[in-house]
Amino acid sequence: MKIAVVAPSCTLSREAAARVEAIVAARGDCVLSIHAQCFESDGHFAGNDAVRLAALREVMADASVDAVWFARGGYGSNRIAEAAASEIPDAARSKLYLGYSDAGFLLAAFHRAGLEVAHGPMPQDMLRDGGEVAVHRALDWIVRRDPASLEPGLTGPAMAFNLIVLSSLLGTAIEPDFTGRELLVEEVSEQHYRIDRTMFHVTGSAAVRRAAGLRLGRASDVPENDPEFGNDEEAIVRDWCARSGLEYRGRADIGHDAGNRVVPFG
Amino acid sequence: MKIAVVAPSCTLSREAAARVEAIVAARGDCVLSIHAQCFESDGHFAGNDAVRLAALREVMADASVDAVWFARGGYGSNRIAEAAASEIPDAARSKLYLGYSDAGFLLAAFHRAGLEVAHGPMPQDMLRDGGEVAVHRALDWIVRRDPASLEPGLTGPAMAFNLIVLSSLLGTAIEPDFTGRELLVEEVSEQHYRIDRTMFHVTGSAAVRRAAGLRLGRASDVPENDPEFGNDEEAIVRDWCARSGLEYRGRADIGHDAGNRVVPFG
Repeated sequence: MKIAVVAPSCTLSREAAARVEAIVAARGDCVLSIHAQCFESDGHFAGNDAVRLAALREVMADASVDAVWFARGGYGSNRIAEAAASEIPDAARSKLYLGYSDAGFLLAAFHRAGLEVAHGPMPQDMLRDGGEVAVHRALDWIVRRDPASLEPGLTGPAMAFNLIVLSSLLGTAIEPDFTGRELLVEEVSEQHYRIDRTMFHVTGSAAVRRAAGLRLGRASDVPENDPEFGNDEEAIVRDWCARSGLEYRGRADIGHDAGNRVVPFG
Repeated sequence: MKIAVVAPSCTLSREAAARVEAIVAARGDCVLSIHAQCFESDGHFAGNDAVRLAALREVMADASVDAVWFARGGYGSNRIAEAAASEIPDAARSKLYLGYSDAGFLLAAFHRAGLEVAHGPMPQDMLRDGGEVAVHRALDWIVRRDPASLEPGLTGPAMAFNLIVLSSLLGTAIEPDFTGRELLVEEVSEQHYRIDRTMFHVTGSAAVRRAAGLRLGRASDVPENDPEFGNDEEAIVRDWCARSGLEYRGRADIGHDAGNRVVPFG
């Protein structure tokens, strides 16, 4: 089992990489290949678009690679997602692709293209409180599809996204088919008024309204709303689900934290 | 000429209201009717949805009102825009509606419904540096359609929006028809990576790609991007226009400042 790590968004921390490599060595059930591109830096990004796309295409086309693990989020995978999802080599079709946050753009584009993708922890999560648990959870899923890694409420086909990432891909060439899927969303560092505005947009989409229902993960590091918004994130999400006719199905165990459970796209 | 002021988003400052009333009294060419709802407060909003919608509907239906001037932005007009744009009374059809920023949701919904709308300064702008000039510019447009108020580069049908507001209404029931219109966008308080992400979304829309072209207003109070993003807002917008085939037509004289010129929707 060979796992390739590439960084389609921002630069991976050397410390996180070293600690994840140590975990993998101790486990002994897989081999980790961290692409040198993960440590490149070009402004906001882990290398410019061409560099990030080339690294991603390289590991997609490598028949010896069983899984592609996105190094971290941040911002930038949307800039190469449409290109990466076009002209997919055969070798890319027998792999799993795992990540979340900004990597959601790739999860969407690749699911749309028929690849196996899952929303779950990434190597950079090693630096979070309890990050080792998150990294093991991701590896348990990648290596042996351990059911213990799964988000516990999954009952049918599902998809999971960071809320603003989901909003930002609606209507674009990488929008996946939500029909009949349960949609799990989580958010980080967005004020309540912004979460409300994004929920307006997401639930206003005819495509999203074809989803089976919606569950809310954690909204963490919510900056202060001045004045107090008046509703918390669950009330906001309930409200927009009710307005749009989308079924609200309760909370989900995903978020920008070490507790983030795995959601395979179905 | 009677101008009604309502606040579909956030609460109007008493100071701004008093200073705008003084300007109107000194001008002597119009009468200002600031609805009491402008000073209500309910969490983030100038009254709850029902209160804001009722005030808006009241002035729309009032045949003695010649223009509806949105008090200020902030956030919240999207929560009542679809309702306000349905069942439009006849009296609402002979008025001008003016505002910008969050009020863009109403400009979109009302233009879609066939009403006369324009993007331009609002009463709360009185508190900006040089705000008096902005207020006079808005009143000159409302009272006598003074060409001097207009954004100077307009050559054909146009629309103007705050960028994140435009992004948030795409695909919803209030999306207007962009076909053949020049699209002017401005932004405030968004980091460069967010502007890039929003431009990805906006230019990824098939509806937006039917616009005649795009011009960029000011992006003000851009928070620091850590690390430095690598491109400024104009390079970002040029890039996404080039990628999407939308013609980039240069800068526009609009923004969250006293220089904000008027853009009637055509």
